[in-house]
Amino acid sequence: MEPQVKRLKTWHAVPMSEMARNTFNPIRSIVDGMKITPNPKKPMIALSIGDPTVFGNLPIPEEIDEAVIDKIRSHKYNGYNPSIGYEEARQAVADYTSSHDAPVTSKDVILTNGCSSALDLCITVLASRGQNILIPRPGFSIYKTLGESLGIQVRFYDLLPEKSWEVDLKHMESQMDENTAAVIVNSPSNPCGSVYSRQHIEEILEVLERNRIPMIADDIYEHFVFSENKYHSMASVSKTVPILSCSGLTKRFLVPGWRMGWIVVHDRSNAFHEIRIGLNSLSQRILGPNSLVQSALNDILKNTPQSFYAETLEYIEDNAKLFYKLISEIPGLKPVKPQGAMYMMVGIDTENFTNIKDDVDFTEKLVSEQSVFCLPAKCFQYPNFFRIVLTIPKEKVETACERIKEFCDLHYNGDSRSYISC
Amino acid sequence: MEPQVKRLKTWHAVPMSEMARNTFNPIRSIVDGMKITPNPKKPMIALSIGDPTVFGNLPIPEEIDEAVIDKIRSHKYNGYNPSIGYEEARQAVADYTSSHDAPVTSKDVILTNGCSSALDLCITVLASRGQNILIPRPGFSIYKTLGESLGIQVRFYDLLPEKSWEVDLKHMESQMDENTAAVIVNSPSNPCGSVYSRQHIEEILEVLERNRIPMIADDIYEHFVFSENKYHSMASVSKTVPILSCSGLTKRFLVPGWRMGWIVVHDRSNAFHEIRIGLNSLSQRILGPNSLVQSALNDILKNTPQSFYAETLEYIEDNAKLFYKLISEIPGLKPVKPQGAMYMMVGIDTENFTNIKDDVDFTEKLVSEQSVFCLPAKCFQYPNFFRIVLTIPKEKVETACERIKEFCDLHYNGDSRSYISC
Ligand SMILES: Cc1ncc(COP(=O)(O)O)c(C=O)c1O
Ligand SMILES: Cc1ncc(COP(=O)(O)O)c(C=O)c1O
Repeated sequence: MEPQVKRLKTWHAVPMSEMARNTFNPIRSIVDGMKITPNPKKPMIALSIGDPTVFGNLPIPEEIDEAVIDKIRSHKYNGYNPSIGYEEARQAVADYTSSHDAPVTSKDVILTNGCSSALDLCITVLASRGQNILIPRPGFSIYKTLGESLGIQVRFYDLLPEKSWEVDLKHMESQMDENTAAVIVNSPSNPCGSVYSRQHIEEILEVLERNRIPMIADDIYEHFVFSENKYHSMASVSKTVPILSCSGLTKRFLVPGWRMGWIVVHDRSNAFHEIRIGLNSLSQRILGPNSLVQSALNDILKNTPQSFYAETLEYIEDNAKLFYKLISEIPGLKPVKPQGAMYMMVGIDTENFTNIKDDVDFTEKLVSEQSVFCLPAKCFQYPNFFRIVLTIPKEKVETACERIKEFCDLHYNGDSRSYISC
Repeated sequence: MEPQVKRLKTWHAVPMSEMARNTFNPIRSIVDGMKITPNPKKPMIALSIGDPTVFGNLPIPEEIDEAVIDKIRSHKYNGYNPSIGYEEARQAVADYTSSHDAPVTSKDVILTNGCSSALDLCITVLASRGQNILIPRPGFSIYKTLGESLGIQVRFYDLLPEKSWEVDLKHMESQMDENTAAVIVNSPSNPCGSVYSRQHIEEILEVLERNRIPMIADDIYEHFVFSENKYHSMASVSKTVPILSCSGLTKRFLVPGWRMGWIVVHDRSNAFHEIRIGLNSLSQRILGPNSLVQSALNDILKNTPQSFYAETLEYIEDNAKLFYKLISEIPGLKPVKPQGAMYMMVGIDTENFTNIKDDVDFTEKLVSEQSVFCLPAKCFQYPNFFRIVLTIPKEKVETACERIKEFCDLHYNGDSRSYISC
């Protein structure tokens, strides 16, 4: 009897598509490549996790939960929504966002699956393959991931740590050409914790105006500014530059898992007629966020008590001040004072650390000796810095800083006075 | 004093990207172009709406609601999930899907924003620009929308109404070439309401096996079959053809707005090693569905009472039988007997209707005279049919059919006996 033909062998491996190959998260690939083995004698303190919910120290108010529970019980919101979102939910976002200098209506709002999907739609609608977009360095990694996966060239413009991470305007302008489809600006910033002044926003807008390039404003940390700073949205300052603003519930309402984001179209200069149509078309690819959260959006945006925002911010600002003070005193480190958001960047005088090559090496060794994990800023295209997350439980801040100090005391050989904090 | 320069005028309209231009929903553009003006003397009956929740006649069980409410109250599930989904939720899908002939584990599951986003990821990971995918005609419109927006060529293979919408296998094979990256198969089907037998699935798989083309199985109506039929998943029949199966809560659990879907990788022939990596990468573009629904998934899939499925199906099957019986008796119409899902297709003997050009014209006039709205099957690339949704309240079925009969009695001139139902 002949053996049965084994057909299994005849299938070759199916290759992944070009787009899948081009989709690449630098944080994942850097972190996955790191040796993260904590010192077994010390419990791990993770200063790396950008998710403000993981420590359980920042509660969300009952009003937010009850808004969703109400809608579940009503049984009225299980169905499909329009792909751009329920009218009522879009109206709620318009009311929440609209200001004297940047008035908008529900027609200007598109709901998305978190701010990431808002950014995806904005990049997708503005830029075609062969064009380029400008993104900040250091900057949030998803801009690059999204752009490159779409076959769009990504160019960096530098931020200046010595100027509280303001944009290097000359460098930004030098990166522009006739194929530049958009510039992404993020203030308050991840990973910098910087907040731009009205004047600096005007300077950025001037560069965009001169070159007729629209802006994508990543406003996910809107209103998230510490007491010495004032929040200005890009749109409230822009007189002429058309802006797509991306935001959502993720950060201010501390519900990143809910995946509720939005785009607000600020169509200065009547330039976005086609872009609105395009966003509408593209929204049909994603069909909008979860209907329960959509239906609760009006209640969430209107009934969340002011005290919740204030208390969350105060908590984070207290942490920021303590972190900044303690790390400023550590030889070989140079923190940049945070002004908002949830992060602080810290420069490393790597040249004067014995046996430490760079930020990845620094953060790996800090874990293995002190069980403190900070994200190397290589993840944000900015080597020789690391990022600290400011949302951790208060009581861990001092311990974390003591351990970082012990680490630096051991390894640093430079003159700490020559490496002074900004 | 010189007048201020009016910079406003100097911005040109910003053009939308190539991808936005290529994103196109045929249903929207056909329906938006139709004159839908009901007869003011008759209340409208919409047989067009694919959302089974809109009529309020198909309740969901409390278990489903309470599963989500529980998780909200626990405050443990507001944070980010892994982009492929919580391990526990993926395990729940694996348990729900796994069968003797198609065993899977949580490693084979990726959670997505509804079945649409599952389909999007599967098309995206398998096909590059310049390649093609094969999709059914008539078929659900999003396959074409997604494929073309990605720059992938979409080719149709015909289904045969006289064979209960089985695949025209010769035609399918004739559409394949070396650039064919995948074939999408949908059973139970929207818009056909057909359910493929085990034997027919084997025939389809043989064609794919011979040509070494992987399958995307749109299984969103899995288990949704009427009493005379038996459900076989593509994966349970496939011995060699690798399959990406797409499904979700949308249809069986009647919560389309919740946007909970998933991909299950059935890696026959060990061909999908790269595809798994690609799906992982691509999932980072969307970051997974709402965390509350994810966290409730295990409870939903395990605790939903069997009676709920049975009652929903019975309701729809009763409607199906009544619709089929009544429409079979109408001159000029030829319904194809539905076997599952929520739809029935009806052929129109357009040649013998006075002053009626095609299915779009037929359905427009049916609205204006009788206030009954059916979707012209042109929306599914299949002119001279229309689709009826079977989920409407029972008491409306007879009225709807009486009105359709009145309409046809008035306009039909052919010999009804020569146009017999399948
Ligand atoms: C600057 C910035 N933009 C966007 C996002 C993504 O927000 P979402 O979780 O709503 O997609 C984040 C999340 O960390 C962020 O830091
Ligand atoms: C055949 C088919 N596939 C996929 C979908 C989309 O499902 P979801 O709403 O989960 O994206 C539908 C919805 O009608 C459908 O009919």
